[in-house]
Amino acid sequence: MDKIILDVMGGDNAPAAIVEGAVRALKDDKRLYLIIAGREAEIKAELAKYKYDASRVEILDCPDVIGMNDVPTEAIKNKQASLTAAYWHLKKNDDVCGLVSAGSTGAIIAGGQLILGRIRGIKRAALCPAIPNVNGATLLCDCGANAECKPSMLCQFALLASAYAQAGFDKANPSVGLLNNGTEEHKGDPLRQETYKYLSQMQGINFVGNVEGRDINYGNVDVVIADGFSGNVALKSIEGCAKMILATMKKQFKSSPASLIGSLFMLGAIKRMKKGLDFDKYGGALLLGLKKVVIKSHGTSKPVTIANAIKNALSIYRNGLIPKVEEMLEKVDLDNLIPVEE
Amino acid sequence: MDKIILDVMGGDNAPAAIVEGAVRALKDDKRLYLIIAGREAEIKAELAKYKYDASRVEILDCPDVIGMNDVPTEAIKNKQASLTAAYWHLKKNDDVCGLVSAGSTGAIIAGGQLILGRIRGIKRAALCPAIPNVNGATLLCDCGANAECKPSMLCQFALLASAYAQAGFDKANPSVGLLNNGTEEHKGDPLRQETYKYLSQMQGINFVGNVEGRDINYGNVDVVIADGFSGNVALKSIEGCAKMILATMKKQFKSSPASLIGSLFMLGAIKRMKKGLDFDKYGGALLLGLKKVVIKSHGTSKPVTIANAIKNALSIYRNGLIPKVEEMLEKVDLDNLIPVEE
Repeated sequence: MDKIILDVMGGDNAPAAIVEGAVRALKDDKRLYLIIAGREAEIKAELAKYKYDASRVEILDCPDVIGMNDVPTEAIKNKQASLTAAYWHLKKNDDVCGLVSAGSTGAIIAGGQLILGRIRGIKRAALCPAIPNVNGATLLCDCGANAECKPSMLCQFALLASAYAQAGFDKANPSVGLLNNGTEEHKGDPLRQETYKYLSQMQGINFVGNVEGRDINYGNVDVVIADGFSGNVALKSIEGCAKMILATMKKQFKSSPASLIGSLFMLGAIKRMKKGLDFDKYGGALLLGLKKVVIKSHGTSKPVTIANAIKNALSIYRNGLIPKVEEMLEKVDLDNLIPVEE
Repeated sequence: MDKIILDVMGGDNAPAAIVEGAVRALKDDKRLYLIIAGREAEIKAELAKYKYDASRVEILDCPDVIGMNDVPTEAIKNKQASLTAAYWHLKKNDDVCGLVSAGSTGAIIAGGQLILGRIRGIKRAALCPAIPNVNGATLLCDCGANAECKPSMLCQFALLASAYAQAGFDKANPSVGLLNNGTEEHKGDPLRQETYKYLSQMQGINFVGNVEGRDINYGNVDVVIADGFSGNVALKSIEGCAKMILATMKKQFKSSPASLIGSLFMLGAIKRMKKGLDFDKYGGALLLGLKKVVIKSHGTSKPVTIANAIKNALSIYRNGLIPKVEEMLEKVDLDNLIPVEE
């Protein structure tokens, strides 16, 4: 059995949609064992709605809930019977391999860094979503955990996301691009210029140079490295654009009898298109750099999103993400490559 | 007559598509007088293909061409008979009101700052495209002229883009948001936190707080302020997303006989949708902060893009963009608001 902790109290549709996602995941994977963290009575009431293999489920009663208005680090410290307890359970039990939550991003990051802890040698954890592109998905790392970055952090993100591309997407030698405001070598601010230099020299990283925002969806590279500020801007700009186009499409397709008839002929094509652009497919962003697999799902997660997040967490664990990172860290002697930073 | 200089040697389809755009613009606006800058023989050969009012056209022979591989500031200094000559003509003739070019962004910015010059009191010029949103367009300023910014620059961008929203989009009291990695007041790095404080205190600016990447396409605000690095990331991420979705749609619509029939019923709706999402509608990005109206069109500009850029330049000039900026600068005493920066 592979054990995953699922926080069911976070997210707009919690706990109902999250518990439904848990039941789906249990059906999909017979080697999955779920530790469902949250308010026990609410979890039991939701679980009672479904048939599931109760021998692969236990409940970790967490009466406290960390809300979107809580200050993350304070909430993680003060609300012990919450996501905090889930993180302690994850840390203390060797046979528990990962955690999935659709709760407050800040709290998930804070708990990951303060309780679970980072892989030895990793400076900062980074959020890494898989963004749909024309061929599959592009990994964008970091997209919000670190608003300010130093070159050594960006270099570590390249290493972490390369390990994720290997363990999660079966890419043997994932290509890595640095998000910049142009593709030429000299482009960008001093942070980008310095990072470019170090990435070019890093062993074990397939660095292909600077890339631009458009390359994320074009899928020209497997991994895009960014500071958390501009990565967040890119991710949310893409989200806004996709929503605008799909909303405009919907409106126009209903705008005349002809186009409404037309859209009926096209239901299959529209369904396939939406599937190709599915932001829920991977269930959320991986919080990279921690000692175990942690996935932050979107606040609006539906049951299928949660089931995908659990599936993804299992798969990444089974493909040995963490040992891969440790192995790469040993090979790449970053301390020797990058001078001490202020 | 309102005189505009059109550089026809820049852009992927130059000079043919640019000259065709010029002819279109002359037809659309009878008060337009065009000074066509570029290689005279090539311009004459292209013009000979069309009927147009020759009394409203003159040619400024510029045998030198600044290419995409030239270093912008060096090219502007060394290649005198090029965009450089066009900029000098713009500077020296009071009756010439603006310039349009689809050439090298770097050269357009360098020529604007080194030859034409900035409005008195403005620290830096900024690129400001109008990005389609669900209700119209959002102005994004800066999106690439300044990779590194200080708070005073971002505050000036807010002022410049607000003047553009008034002169170009008829918004009486345009709302302004600061691009950040979250909407809460404390969000972002020190640059964002400081800028937030000053924008909140600026007279004559309708600052509504932090916005996220998704708000650009949602159209929740009229103006989004960004440093040139993250603005560029946002713009290009949106471009990549839009292209990916339209390409996926096209592919899926041709994927089966049913969907092909369906798409025929929907031609009208698809056309209206594309029109709503038209990135060519405004012809390019305004280079704000200069003494006259300068528009940088996309390198891939088609004739209609160039005609739109000329139309947009005329309209902004006629609505008094530059006097509006000067008036706002006087009202907002930025030097008094923001302490001297390093």
